[in-house]
Amino acid sequence: MLHPSIPNASTPVAPLPAGPIPSGAESRLERGRRALAEIDGNAGTAVIAALADIAPDFATYVFEFPFGDIYSRPGLGLREREIATIAALAALGNAAPQLEVHIEAGLNVGLSRAEIVEVLMQMAVYAGFPAALNGLFAAKAVFARRTARGEG
Amino acid sequence: MLHPSIPNASTPVAPLPAGPIPSGAESRLERGRRALAEIDGNAGTAVIAALADIAPDFATYVFEFPFGDIYSRPGLGLREREIATIAALAALGNAAPQLEVHIEAGLNVGLSRAEIVEVLMQMAVYAGFPAALNGLFAAKAVFARRTARGEG
Amino acid sequence: MLHPSIPNASTPVAPLPAGPIPSGAESRLERGRRALAEIDGNAGTAVIAALADIAPDFATYVFEFPFGDIYSRPGLGLREREIATIAALAALGNAAPQLEVHIEAGLNVGLSRAEIVEVLMQMAVYAGFPAALNGLFAAKAVFARRTARGEG
Amino acid sequence: MLHPSIPNASTPVAPLPAGPIPSGAESRLERGRRALAEIDGNAGTAVIAALADIAPDFATYVFEFPFGDIYSRPGLGLREREIATIAALAALGNAAPQLEVHIEAGLNVGLSRAEIVEVLMQMAVYAGFPAALNGLFAAKAVFARRTARGEG
Amino acid sequence: MLHPSIPNASTPVAPLPAGPIPSGAESRLERGRRALAEIDGNAGTAVIAALADIAPDFATYVFEFPFGDIYSRPGLGLREREIATIAALAALGNAAPQLEVHIEAGLNVGLSRAEIVEVLMQMAVYAGFPAALNGLFAAKAVFARRTARGEG
Amino acid sequence: MLHPSIPNASTPVAPLPAGPIPSGAESRLERGRRALAEIDGNAGTAVIAALADIAPDFATYVFEFPFGDIYSRPGLGLREREIATIAALAALGNAAPQLEVHIEAGLNVGLSRAEIVEVLMQMAVYAGFPAALNGLFAAKAVFARRTARGEG
Repeated sequence: MLHPSIPNASTPVAPLPAGPIPSGAESRLERGRRALAEIDGNAGTAVIAALADIAPDFATYVFEFPFGDIYSRPGLGLREREIATIAALAALGNAAPQLEVHIEAGLNVGLSRAEIVEVLMQMAVYAGFPAALNGLFAAKAVFARRTARGEG
Repeated sequence: MLHPSIPNASTPVAPLPAGPIPSGAESRLERGRRALAEIDGNAGTAVIAALADIAPDFATYVFEFPFGDIYSRPGLGLREREIATIAALAALGNAAPQLEVHIEAGLNVGLSRAEIVEVLMQMAVYAGFPAALNGLFAAKAVFARRTARGEG
Repeated sequence: MLHPSIPNASTPVAPLPAGPIPSGAESRLERGRRALAEIDGNAGTAVIAALADIAPDFATYVFEFPFGDIYSRPGLGLREREIATIAALAALGNAAPQLEVHIEAGLNVGLSRAEIVEVLMQMAVYAGFPAALNGLFAAKAVFARRTARGEG
Repeated sequence: MLHPSIPNASTPVAPLPAGPIPSGAESRLERGRRALAEIDGNAGTAVIAALADIAPDFATYVFEFPFGDIYSRPGLGLREREIATIAALAALGNAAPQLEVHIEAGLNVGLSRAEIVEVLMQMAVYAGFPAALNGLFAAKAVFARRTARGEG
Repeated sequence: MLHPSIPNASTPVAPLPAGPIPSGAESRLERGRRALAEIDGNAGTAVIAALADIAPDFATYVFEFPFGDIYSRPGLGLREREIATIAALAALGNAAPQLEVHIEAGLNVGLSRAEIVEVLMQMAVYAGFPAALNGLFAAKAVFARRTARGEG
Repeated sequence: MLHPSIPNASTPVAPLPAGPIPSGAESRLERGRRALAEIDGNAGTAVIAALADIAPDFATYVFEFPFGDIYSRPGLGLREREIATIAALAALGNAAPQLEVHIEAGLNVGLSRAEIVEVLMQMAVYAGFPAALNGLFAAKAVFARRTARGEG
């Protein structure tokens, strides 16, 4: 066993419910709005609002599919989901605004700054050093904004 | 809070040591070999062995940098590291053999089949449905091989 | 005007309804199944069926979002939608099975073989000659299978 | 048949001539200059002009191959060609300036704003939601500039 | 100076002519056919031949633009051009057949096997270890075929 | 032979030593720092310095692996290494800051402006015209800054 003895200090996140989400109680749109607000906070909501005059239906789809369907699924914690999203966006390297939103989101759902840095550094292995560097500079910008706002 | 109450059933993994790895005791190459064997098992080792006659120095680099440096770092568990790697490789969509190796690796370090499927489905949001589909079919092939070998 | 006088000989496709689709009459899942069957035919359905034992929820999402939501929208004909999809998949170059499915789909909704070849050749400009070549070889394989089946 | 009855309201474009373009009458360079001016208007011409002091031969190639050879081919209308180009550039996500030029071009050759929005939304399926979002924001910027100039 | 004293042992290639190629003497198509035959040998020619029944005009474009225009330009040696092409194709990772053709081409124009391996290993830095690994395995396959044919 | 007679005018670069670099005399970190300073000059060093407050270990990795391991290898000249890097970064199109740094680096190690322009134009063939155009505009910006600083 490689790392046998020291517990991971990162804050655990409240896991997703194991059973199916009772869809009668809440529409996909309502569930997605709630999930987006919890996960991405104001940054995500602002992005969606900017779609209102050009593609309002797409704003609905963003609430419904990524957040109402995927992020609301039981089976994987939000902390793990944000690790996956940050890794993918840094590796793809073509979605800088969304990467910053999800670095914020990762912090919102319980990842530490140090854990996000680890994920981004690891992308040097799979997508190259420039992808990792650009991800780290995105994180630096997000961290600075949060520090200026007095957030962790 | 979106998912308040049910604990995540996935097996916890032994975390990485918090302090610096004493490098005197073990070279980067030795540490990387050990980490690769633990994480990727035979599949990873076979890939490296295939480099022997064309680029033996590159085999050394694979042991040293990804495994001796990155995966051996404290600060993020192996389970989280494999979530990040599976997400990135599925999103990039240009490294099918490595994606299969890391789906194996994810199972080796404690991810459940269901959790890996969640990560791959989520990639539909960030890299498109074809990337998610191809990732899911890679997982299907890996799961079938493991079932045939009597592994979980 | 560059090309003023000769009408485009490609078969026109029946356009999408301009008004909103009455969702009460049919669920997203039902509408998506119907759209997938019409557009992609057996090839698409077979792909989805292959998900049943590993990610049945994802099969549902494929019916619902791409086909129940997007392809069913008024505002763009299916012929134009398949031009967009073939162009994107050939340019991305990382989704060979899906590209073949959508070359089939393009023919199903009224694109001619020659029009599909034009779209693929054009990708040399935006994604490079290898992307165009690999797209053309995918088309060659699809066309040969259809000819063998006695289809246009 | 999915959408049987309502005609597509989008403006038809003058199709390309079916026969070969008589090359004696016009060089590839001349034909390409003319096509670029018609399709991309000032935005495209300005991009090419910016190459004059660093790579004038490349400006010639841009006129000759994409515009003199490809866009001037019979067999696919300019409206369909711009659908393919907008889809590809939005999916690739690494060519923001060219995407804006071709959203302009699409409008110039007869696509409506609503049709371009449909193409961009569809890219969520094939290249992920961030690619679609960034494409939609590019369209928003182009539409605003055209509105400010009094253009449709 | 990092590496001041030992001459590079790789075979020098005959450089390109410094002046403009007199186009009257030879068409772009003829020049491109000749360049492709010299650079890519039979592998390249076979690829183009496979286009004959589906997109013969595209075969002409492949001769004319990449080979008749670009590779025939003075200003950069063929050895340097193949370094650039091998690097780009390995980094993109979505054009495996073309990468093999250009590894052959690199050897044809004077790169050594060891130099090609160096270029591919370097791609680990810019496009990630999987891209480098897949490039190295492509080289391994090409080298084995050439050894079987008795070529260097 | 395509271009038999005129010597390539580009300045030859001092090649790398053929034998192994004696690692006892210098650590990977020291060797990497020295190589980065020689190759990338101040631009590269500034990038690394910006990591100090967020990911200092990653700065160490950048010195050690790309520069201490890869660029310091014998077997390929720095001029050839920069051709490969410029080609890859232009083709990938998702790392604009690093592309500018390596265009500077290419000039530092003996590539001429004209040779860099050739490499970038060639990328139109493999990654599309937008990738080549964006690479050329990056070169234009770098060349202008160097001219303003009185550098070649």
